[in-house]
Amino acid sequence: MQQPTLVRELTESDILARILARTGRASAARVGPGDDAAVVQTSGSVVVTTDTLIEGPDFRRAWSSGYDLGWKACAVNLADVAAMGARPTALVVALGLPGDLPIADVEAMADGFREACEALAPGCAVVGGDLTQSAALTIAVTALGDTEGREPVLRSGAAAGEVVALAGEMGQAAAGLRVLFSRFCDEAGRATPLDRAELASEEDRLVAAQLRPQPPVGLGPFAARGGATAMMDVSDGLARDAGRLARASGVALDLDARALGPDPQAALAGGEDHALLATFPEGALPPGFRAIGRVVAAGASEVLVDGQPHAGGSGWDPYRDWASGAAPA
Amino acid sequence: MQQPTLVRELTESDILARILARTGRASAARVGPGDDAAVVQTSGSVVVTTDTLIEGPDFRRAWSSGYDLGWKACAVNLADVAAMGARPTALVVALGLPGDLPIADVEAMADGFREACEALAPGCAVVGGDLTQSAALTIAVTALGDTEGREPVLRSGAAAGEVVALAGEMGQAAAGLRVLFSRFCDEAGRATPLDRAELASEEDRLVAAQLRPQPPVGLGPFAARGGATAMMDVSDGLARDAGRLARASGVALDLDARALGPDPQAALAGGEDHALLATFPEGALPPGFRAIGRVVAAGASEVLVDGQPHAGGSGWDPYRDWASGAAPA
Repeated sequence: MQQPTLVRELTESDILARILARTGRASAARVGPGDDAAVVQTSGSVVVTTDTLIEGPDFRRAWSSGYDLGWKACAVNLADVAAMGARPTALVVALGLPGDLPIADVEAMADGFREACEALAPGCAVVGGDLTQSAALTIAVTALGDTEGREPVLRSGAAAGEVVALAGEMGQAAAGLRVLFSRFCDEAGRATPLDRAELASEEDRLVAAQLRPQPPVGLGPFAARGGATAMMDVSDGLARDAGRLARASGVALDLDARALGPDPQAALAGGEDHALLATFPEGALPPGFRAIGRVVAAGASEVLVDGQPHAGGSGWDPYRDWASGAAPA
Repeated sequence: MQQPTLVRELTESDILARILARTGRASAARVGPGDDAAVVQTSGSVVVTTDTLIEGPDFRRAWSSGYDLGWKACAVNLADVAAMGARPTALVVALGLPGDLPIADVEAMADGFREACEALAPGCAVVGGDLTQSAALTIAVTALGDTEGREPVLRSGAAAGEVVALAGEMGQAAAGLRVLFSRFCDEAGRATPLDRAELASEEDRLVAAQLRPQPPVGLGPFAARGGATAMMDVSDGLARDAGRLARASGVALDLDARALGPDPQAALAGGEDHALLATFPEGALPPGFRAIGRVVAAGASEVLVDGQPHAGGSGWDPYRDWASGAAPA
């Protein structure tokens, strides 16, 4: 059987050509890949955010396919743009590739970039990037977005009396990570190849939430038009991120345990959910958002659950959970 | 003596706070660090580019201080924005930090970010970023720029009869790298600590060109206003990059050996120069640019020197030179 073609067997320009054949075209791109920089049309303000996936602290190659990695690297950045109430317009991607990586995995990653954009943020695509060699596979994505003339929705705009609302699911990506650590590790704690056929349907759903997150990107601008006063991407667990929004706004958030699903503690701890947490004035919420609590005056605790200070887990810490190689508790 | 504080001894938010205390403020930032994304004012088109430095393929910690790395990671991106004829407005920085890195090095890196912007692109600063753990120190910078209402200057606009011009120095950064590989490596080829006091003044100048490049960023928009028809950042050697500009424009560039300094071959090979190569209509060149040749009709060879096809070195290849751990020939 023929060996796969590896990154180290190709020149930089060969690799680049194979990626660019697959990344699609951004509708706002005035100049795409191939020059010193890309040029993207905007309405006057550009939203910019960056988030990197590095093998080891952020993923295992045994569990994530190239396509999964391309998808997730884009999705987490698209979610941050959406959380400002903006529409994602363009991505740039800096790849650090190990020499022993099959080029087919790089091509699959490019497919993941394109399809995550098509599915989550139509019109957005990769407009540029950078290739370098790296022992650890590294995917640094920067996303741009357009506020379309609206004010960006910050974390700091919530006011007492408003409704706390959520779009997206909580706790599933963390549960998916627990499935991976408990089912696909050898005795030394090393990741072993994921075979999704071995998974029960519910486990597979959780693993999919971890490997290919589906943030409600379109609901970001929709919430902005619908009057969201504050918004953020929930990526480090609802409790921790709600605390951040509360602190930025100088308020407290009182969450309703019944609205947090069958396992409120799991929902509050979570991690890598990429849901949108937003606040709205009293009244109708935009479709896609469900009420999970109220904004109240600042007090001793930034996050309350059913009126009681929340003293639960501090949420996701990427410096502790994935990085330690151990399953989150 | 007290041990330095290491990255692994601090929380993510502690590290972030120490960086943000030093990164300055971008004049175009409407929303700076601390939310899900930054928001940057633009005139309608935003230029975006990304370039990553990874320990090993791109630098050695024994040779580059934290400040050097911060400076260089910014400078190379600012050069790409300038090469579009645009003014850099904002940077986002994704850092992959080894746990054993002293936090003082991270702070010095942030100083390098700030001072490279202050020196090369006043008004530009870091507006956001991302921290993750990484075995290899990784600095992925994305730069944004504003075309200020002008058309971007592409690689593809050169026409026969125009003047080929250059701003910046050629061959020095590559010569500086040779100094480092020949003077600061042990017998196994491992980098040994750089002591610049050991260097003669000329060697020190070359090493500085390698470690803290000074691209003529302000001359990019200046050239655009001055009528540049094509422009690019010369980072992979003049011969290779001139070939790229020629190919993009469907022309050939005939360079004048006498204009390339005392060692034209070294100038043509180069690498990591971060000079600006541009073409202008016949007539006065903008100050800062010197004529180095003419644009001629496309022929069998994209780059000529004194009318003869250039068959010299193919220039800088980051997949071959730094990555191999060997000094470029």
